[in-house]
Amino acid sequence: MSIDDGLVVATITTSLDGFVAGPNQTLEDPLGEGGERLHEWLFSESEPASTAVTDEILGGAAVIQGRNMFGPIRGEWSDDAWKGWWGEDPPFHVPVFVLTHHAREPVEMLGGTTFHFVTGGIEEALARARAVADGGRISVAGGASTVRQFLAAGLLDRLILSIAPITLGAGERLFDGVELGGDAGTRLKPLQVFENAAATHIVYDVVR
Amino acid sequence: MSIDDGLVVATITTSLDGFVAGPNQTLEDPLGEGGERLHEWLFSESEPASTAVTDEILGGAAVIQGRNMFGPIRGEWSDDAWKGWWGEDPPFHVPVFVLTHHAREPVEMLGGTTFHFVTGGIEEALARARAVADGGRISVAGGASTVRQFLAAGLLDRLILSIAPITLGAGERLFDGVELGGDAGTRLKPLQVFENAAATHIVYDVVR
Repeated sequence: MSIDDGLVVATITTSLDGFVAGPNQTLEDPLGEGGERLHEWLFSESEPASTAVTDEILGGAAVIQGRNMFGPIRGEWSDDAWKGWWGEDPPFHVPVFVLTHHAREPVEMLGGTTFHFVTGGIEEALARARAVADGGRISVAGGASTVRQFLAAGLLDRLILSIAPITLGAGERLFDGVELGGDAGTRLKPLQVFENAAATHIVYDVVR
Repeated sequence: MSIDDGLVVATITTSLDGFVAGPNQTLEDPLGEGGERLHEWLFSESEPASTAVTDEILGGAAVIQGRNMFGPIRGEWSDDAWKGWWGEDPPFHVPVFVLTHHAREPVEMLGGTTFHFVTGGIEEALARARAVADGGRISVAGGASTVRQFLAAGLLDRLILSIAPITLGAGERLFDGVELGGDAGTRLKPLQVFENAAATHIVYDVVR
């Protein structure tokens, strides 16, 4: 697998008890209570994931994300000052398509990241991402609802599930209501694993 | 890691949505509805796990298991004819210590398996398993409640979590009520992964 292979790849981190966010998401706790512990594998000083692995897992020529991933604001964009959680130079460095019900002008950031706001759902977001990705990987960067929508629509080629070796006890579950294997039309097939002492990253092929 | 290293190793298979058994366990469905799909990785003809891997994962010089793993009978042993789910020659080939509240004479099977019934809880089971294991691995072979008891008591050295690429939607969750990482006294550290197209097996070191 190469990051420029034109596939649609969802990347999300889950706890061992199946949560991709803790309960009670707020401005101070964008991932919910305890949710920041999910991503210790990205920031661990004692057990850092290699740059090669993080590029392989998180890389993309264009990114699609749900609105909650972009910010805590619901409803209309009453505050156009909000430009995401990541400061002036977000870590994407590519166009990012944010799913929303409320139109907003694009926001250009430093370092090559531009946030585009898509009101036409995942199909429109995917078409626009493909148009700018130049044959490169489209990264579906959560949250849970966005990943489930892509899975249900048959638009996902790969799922990279990063398993943090923690439990959260409550929050949002990735696979609630998702049927995989058995009589379901969608199966996941483990393709490859990236190991690290801080987390385990399983690359699944989505087979329909 | 070697299977004869004297460690206490729990082995259990989970679905992606966190279930180690489906709902409504019965005599016909010992793992609950759909639960037999969890173990397709063991029996898959198209993607068989290698014997080396299954020995590494499932091997042990003595086995401890919960009563539900042994049979569907609850309460007194009204029917001494029940000798486990596995027929006359069970796949263990070593002494198996079954946790129960109800005493029963040992049952010797073909192939080296003898079922011993332990009424003194996990500590007694572990002491008796150690006494016969001759320094070899003690395998804690489920179910969820038994694995949780060993974790909570600080008696587990390793957890081998086999992740089947399916969802079950309902059933018994392994990690319900289990605190791992963060401020919890117990952490899991990924040590090694056995990959296979049918399942992913993560070996965790249990750190206290």
